[in-house]
Amino acid sequence: MSINRAAATRIEVPRGLAGVVVTDTRIGDVRGTEGFYHYRQYSAVELAQTRGFEDVWHLLAYGELPDAEQGAAFAAETAALRRLPDEVRAALPAVAAMATASGTSGALSGSSSGPLSGMRTALSLLGAAKGFRPVYDIDTDARRRDTLVASAAVPTLLTALYRLGQGLDPVEPREDLSYAANYLYMLTGSEPDKQQARAIEQYLISTIDHGFNASTFTARVIASTGADVAACLVGAVGALSGPLHGGAPSRALDTLDAIGTPDRIDPWIRERVLAGDRIMGFGHAIYRTEDPRSRMLREVAQQFGGPRVEFAVEVERQVEAILAELKPGRELHTNVEFYAGLVMELCGLPREMFTPTFAAARVVGWSANVVEQAEDSKIIRPVARYVGVGAPVAVPLMS
Amino acid sequence: MSINRAAATRIEVPRGLAGVVVTDTRIGDVRGTEGFYHYRQYSAVELAQTRGFEDVWHLLAYGELPDAEQGAAFAAETAALRRLPDEVRAALPAVAAMATASGTSGALSGSSSGPLSGMRTALSLLGAAKGFRPVYDIDTDARRRDTLVASAAVPTLLTALYRLGQGLDPVEPREDLSYAANYLYMLTGSEPDKQQARAIEQYLISTIDHGFNASTFTARVIASTGADVAACLVGAVGALSGPLHGGAPSRALDTLDAIGTPDRIDPWIRERVLAGDRIMGFGHAIYRTEDPRSRMLREVAQQFGGPRVEFAVEVERQVEAILAELKPGRELHTNVEFYAGLVMELCGLPREMFTPTFAAARVVGWSANVVEQAEDSKIIRPVARYVGVGAPVAVPLMS
Repeated sequence: MSINRAAATRIEVPRGLAGVVVTDTRIGDVRGTEGFYHYRQYSAVELAQTRGFEDVWHLLAYGELPDAEQGAAFAAETAALRRLPDEVRAALPAVAAMATASGTSGALSGSSSGPLSGMRTALSLLGAAKGFRPVYDIDTDARRRDTLVASAAVPTLLTALYRLGQGLDPVEPREDLSYAANYLYMLTGSEPDKQQARAIEQYLISTIDHGFNASTFTARVIASTGADVAACLVGAVGALSGPLHGGAPSRALDTLDAIGTPDRIDPWIRERVLAGDRIMGFGHAIYRTEDPRSRMLREVAQQFGGPRVEFAVEVERQVEAILAELKPGRELHTNVEFYAGLVMELCGLPREMFTPTFAAARVVGWSANVVEQAEDSKIIRPVARYVGVGAPVAVPLMS
Repeated sequence: MSINRAAATRIEVPRGLAGVVVTDTRIGDVRGTEGFYHYRQYSAVELAQTRGFEDVWHLLAYGELPDAEQGAAFAAETAALRRLPDEVRAALPAVAAMATASGTSGALSGSSSGPLSGMRTALSLLGAAKGFRPVYDIDTDARRRDTLVASAAVPTLLTALYRLGQGLDPVEPREDLSYAANYLYMLTGSEPDKQQARAIEQYLISTIDHGFNASTFTARVIASTGADVAACLVGAVGALSGPLHGGAPSRALDTLDAIGTPDRIDPWIRERVLAGDRIMGFGHAIYRTEDPRSRMLREVAQQFGGPRVEFAVEVERQVEAILAELKPGRELHTNVEFYAGLVMELCGLPREMFTPTFAAARVVGWSANVVEQAEDSKIIRPVARYVGVGAPVAVPLMS
């Protein structure tokens, strides 16, 4: 019915809906000028520093941190959901073959379209296999259950697709490992060392949610039609695969590779800055300050130490110094991609899995948004303004 | 960079973005108060009455109606795209089995989540198999080509999934039939009679595009990230599967079935109206007047004639009369579902294929929107307002 009034009153807003408040949320917030973001009132960085992934997942899903007993129960519940239904597992080799064949160009261009297109298909299959029902036909508990089923399976799907693409057999999930450790285990087939498992866990926690990005918005638009959880998450994966959204943490590493050695940092960066080129891994749309995720992930990386980390820190230092010299007054810091890429590399993740790994965390944020959106009964449906040729004309006779 | 300014200036708009102009378009427009809608300046109803589906598809894709030679070339080009890649065809039995197993509840509730969940998976696979690249990495011609590849395959995918769900072998597409006739042919395995093929073609043409609905908007949001065409269309299919969007033309037939016989129309309708129940197949958010699609599809149905059509027309007449009596001043007419369901029934389509058939037309509209959106370089990304608990608090120690 709203469209009726909509047609009567057209509301002009900035391009891309920039700054347009589309909904209220109780999930989290990003405070760009403070360099701070939170999940349900708790600093996301602090959560990453002090909690496990499952505890923060519980916070997103239920609105509160679990106590020890709740946390153990939730960890056990979600661990039991890691194993794929047989029919989904059986379909994955074909999915992987198609995604791999098509993914080469995507991976080369840094868009990760390849691995994410396999993920998109696999999540869609999983939703069908699990019989997900439209979110408007079920209650909050059932919706949340579907999101847990989907999210818990994402690492299994991602790692199986990756290994199949490499000609390897998938590794079955282990319920005795944490979400993060099991992810690395399924990827490599070996139990990860504690430092790597904890580092990737901290990355994953810091990446669960971050304001109202395009994939989160996509998930909410689809949820607002009442579609099932898989439809919402598959749409979000699609949006994440877009170069303007998902970005590519691997690009920041490409910058490190291109520079090569510490002595080349200064000339390489100066040349780029003077040419007006963007330096991958630097600059963020929201933060005026240092990105709080970068700060945390730099510390995580520095705990590993070694020449690669020292080189990255030195690149950061020199980029900031050169920018301060050549472009004074312009605040430019590393964005999350810079140290996220480094941390993922330190944890043994191949570059093509960087954006998919991001999805393995963000699916928990999308899920919270889908459940929240489904509590609303209002479809998200803006309007477009027709600006084509003018008055209607008769359809010409066939020539 | 826009988000920065966005954070500074929050713009309040109606719920669900109602009336908010999110983009300019040259594709079409719906004029609710005039009972008129058009595709690129041509009355959609007039197009349905005078042209074939492929001509209108060309109009949507290229911005102009083809001349005879262009039309023949376009028809041949798209007909050649109907056949599925071998690896996609090989994967469909598994996709159909999962969608069918899960689809029962969706079909019963009228949401069509089942068949559309299979479609969602199959389109995602097709995009991977065809190596679709991010729309921002390719030019307009390549984007359009990907949309043609996807759209041309949709009837093949839909009918194959349906037949597999029924335990039947898929029927290979025929290039010598029109898009519409081939759709019915692949569904039934028999060449359709001319009247049925033309009737479904008119329905399909009238359904290609209709303003900025939630699935079209979803496709554009995903396209605005630069994702590939399959990601955009898969998201749109997901949105269409939502009960608040896709609706269900079959529900209007359910109303006819529930009434049963002409003598029961009056008491049945009165009881519903007095109870304040919604009558499926009546009422539309946009049109104040009769829905122009209903008017056209009623004429199409009346060309078939017979007691079923007469019954439907009589139900419409009596509903309008009873509403005029009991709710004077409230304009309420049949919506597109009412006669669309009847026409699809007359053409031999099973009810569970009604919404999927809608998708077989709308994919052409989504495609035009994806190509148009990709010409813009601005990501669609509104903001949310945090309304959860107040000031940040320290993460509690593990209890």
